[in-house]
Amino acid sequence: MAPEDIKAKIESANATAVQRVLASKPHLVDVKPAIEVLPGMNKRSIFHAGPPIKWGSMCGPMKGAVVANIIFEGWASSWDGAVKLVEEGEVELSPNHDHEAVGPMAGVISPSLPVVVVKNEKFGNVNYGRVVEQKVQFGAFDEEAIQSLQFWKKVLAPALAKALGRLRSSGSIGIDLKSIMARALYMGDELHNRPSAGTALFALSILPSLIESGEDKERLSQIVKYFSGNEIFFLCLAMAACKATMNAAKDVEYSTLVTVMARNGVDFGIKVSGLGNQWFTGPAGMVKGLYFPGYGTQDANPDMGDSAITETTGVGAFALANSPAILSLVGGTAQDAFNYTKQMREITTTLNDTFLVPILDFEGTATGIDIRKVVKTGILPVIDTAIAHKDPGIGMIGAGIVNPPMEAFKSALRAFASKYKV
Amino acid sequence: MAPEDIKAKIESANATAVQRVLASKPHLVDVKPAIEVLPGMNKRSIFHAGPPIKWGSMCGPMKGAVVANIIFEGWASSWDGAVKLVEEGEVELSPNHDHEAVGPMAGVISPSLPVVVVKNEKFGNVNYGRVVEQKVQFGAFDEEAIQSLQFWKKVLAPALAKALGRLRSSGSIGIDLKSIMARALYMGDELHNRPSAGTALFALSILPSLIESGEDKERLSQIVKYFSGNEIFFLCLAMAACKATMNAAKDVEYSTLVTVMARNGVDFGIKVSGLGNQWFTGPAGMVKGLYFPGYGTQDANPDMGDSAITETTGVGAFALANSPAILSLVGGTAQDAFNYTKQMREITTTLNDTFLVPILDFEGTATGIDIRKVVKTGILPVIDTAIAHKDPGIGMIGAGIVNPPMEAFKSALRAFASKYKV
Repeated sequence: MAPEDIKAKIESANATAVQRVLASKPHLVDVKPAIEVLPGMNKRSIFHAGPPIKWGSMCGPMKGAVVANIIFEGWASSWDGAVKLVEEGEVELSPNHDHEAVGPMAGVISPSLPVVVVKNEKFGNVNYGRVVEQKVQFGAFDEEAIQSLQFWKKVLAPALAKALGRLRSSGSIGIDLKSIMARALYMGDELHNRPSAGTALFALSILPSLIESGEDKERLSQIVKYFSGNEIFFLCLAMAACKATMNAAKDVEYSTLVTVMARNGVDFGIKVSGLGNQWFTGPAGMVKGLYFPGYGTQDANPDMGDSAITETTGVGAFALANSPAILSLVGGTAQDAFNYTKQMREITTTLNDTFLVPILDFEGTATGIDIRKVVKTGILPVIDTAIAHKDPGIGMIGAGIVNPPMEAFKSALRAFASKYKV
Repeated sequence: MAPEDIKAKIESANATAVQRVLASKPHLVDVKPAIEVLPGMNKRSIFHAGPPIKWGSMCGPMKGAVVANIIFEGWASSWDGAVKLVEEGEVELSPNHDHEAVGPMAGVISPSLPVVVVKNEKFGNVNYGRVVEQKVQFGAFDEEAIQSLQFWKKVLAPALAKALGRLRSSGSIGIDLKSIMARALYMGDELHNRPSAGTALFALSILPSLIESGEDKERLSQIVKYFSGNEIFFLCLAMAACKATMNAAKDVEYSTLVTVMARNGVDFGIKVSGLGNQWFTGPAGMVKGLYFPGYGTQDANPDMGDSAITETTGVGAFALANSPAILSLVGGTAQDAFNYTKQMREITTTLNDTFLVPILDFEGTATGIDIRKVVKTGILPVIDTAIAHKDPGIGMIGAGIVNPPMEAFKSALRAFASKYKV
């Protein structure tokens, strides 16, 4: 094929892929134990964030999170017991993204952990998200950490499932997450590190059904207080909504659009629409940001989590100009936030038609990362993220800004050239 | 006194007054029928927005609102009956601000209408606010308009009163409105035309107590849906909180700080800390903004409402840079929003230490309008506001930006010079 023909074919494929991104309509439809819904999960599976990685190569906080979930499942009761089980090959480790799912930070999902079920009402694909909490996902595995998973499993998830069941039985297609996300972007959220408005709007959306489903008043009051006190909650819904959005843009032949960016704390991996399920990786970067008192860069684990699916979809740090309040958490100035949001236009395919930036006179966020543009301009996607301590059992120590490794984009582009004989 | 001495005295008085503004801690403590709490209200009183005005001089929408409240109270059942009652002198009309209260747009408060009770926990003063709705306050007086007052009186107000009673009995000092306002300013609100985040945060704050107070589930669900569907709700709480804040800065001898800006749809009035309860007025301006389809400037009533108490306190249009999303309602560009927020520093006393502007790298909003600076610079305070149709019975037709008349500030400054022999 002549170079101009191949270029036209790529442009057309990217237009198709990004149009599917824009047209997606992710709705929260259910909350179910992972084992019941995640494709390929068996009763001794543990899925994790980022590209594939063996136990021996995992970073400290991801090991801690795997151990926490083993204790949560009751397969072992201590670090040593859990590690023994894994080392004996009794636990199957596999990336969330290879099973239609996403999880924050370590992102670890075990069979009995309930996941949010998000259906893309436009294209029919269904994807799954792990709850966000402040302990296990950062590598803590003590009693208190396990309790945060128990609250989700025993209190919040069943209540949400009941409320969503009530909505379904009244003919509803669930909670419209895209609408909440669009509104939250007008309310100071960038939907990755700051989903505060999303949490409040989601709470008010689900509460009538939760109330009508007959939840008792102590439980109801506890749940409302949970939403008030855990502003990060909506991140798991935003992530699952973004996953359901980007999966609709998968497998468009000739498309150079990035459909996944994810990190396991050691490697950063991407997937590309026209390149099937293959991961292209490079080393996960160190996050530049602000640390909690008593911690510093020497304590930090490299970049980790599936949460960069938000940036892949055009929110997160791509919408940082909407969320200047987050700068007190991740560092930087308001001007930096503008600059990031504008600079991302140079490596993307279009401006979003739903996710808008009022302070940029209502222009859309940059959407649809194109591996060609990243390699050509040398501009890397920007991601805002939390920082985990590098050792298991400690937790979150800060937050900041990070980039993927250029290597992942270059090797994807080489694979593209080889597959399509460019 | 020598000019430099008087200047020092004024500066010191303004520092005292604005320090009281910054130190104020308004809490929502109760919701009660106006007649039970408003000083000077008798059983045939109707209080209204802005400076004093006689029935014959009132604008169309304020007349409509007075008639609506007369019908709501059952004193008459029609426009003609209500007008007859007023013209026979059977109804006492008086400004909200002269009775420790504020109300949006026409702002009309009648005896049985419940008002929110806000206590300034720092200084002890108690102030009152009228509920925000989309009908009566814009001059509608039909069945549907009256119903919106009935919902407040019969459903929402009693439920809130019960929840607040429960909080009081558990030793709480009520709902901390300043904290909600500060958080809402990080979430795209300017707290005058856009209090959306405030409404969501307030709803989540009061709901646990509302649930625990044993409200039945149909009622609870209805109330949650009301908060979701009426994002403007929090304006009444923001206004009452601002009134309780500014009243703490009243009556500081030698202070040139503005403590009230309010409009009755005909006149714009201000009060000044060092000048007691006297109103200084000029003609209310026409609002420049965006109209709903089918309406234009020829239909608009001049500026109306006590809601400019928000700008008086350093929020509303003074915080417009926090709320670019509101520009789709009031018109203008993001740059205008920055400009207004910065320009107000030239006529104010300090930057707020609690109400911050993240996009201006977390600097505070301009707080404490000084009549001297307004007159000297020729810069008028900026106010963002809704627009009512000039005829009674129609309602809201748009929103935009307006300024007070310079005349009010000049006559206040003259009175100041005369009182203090400057």
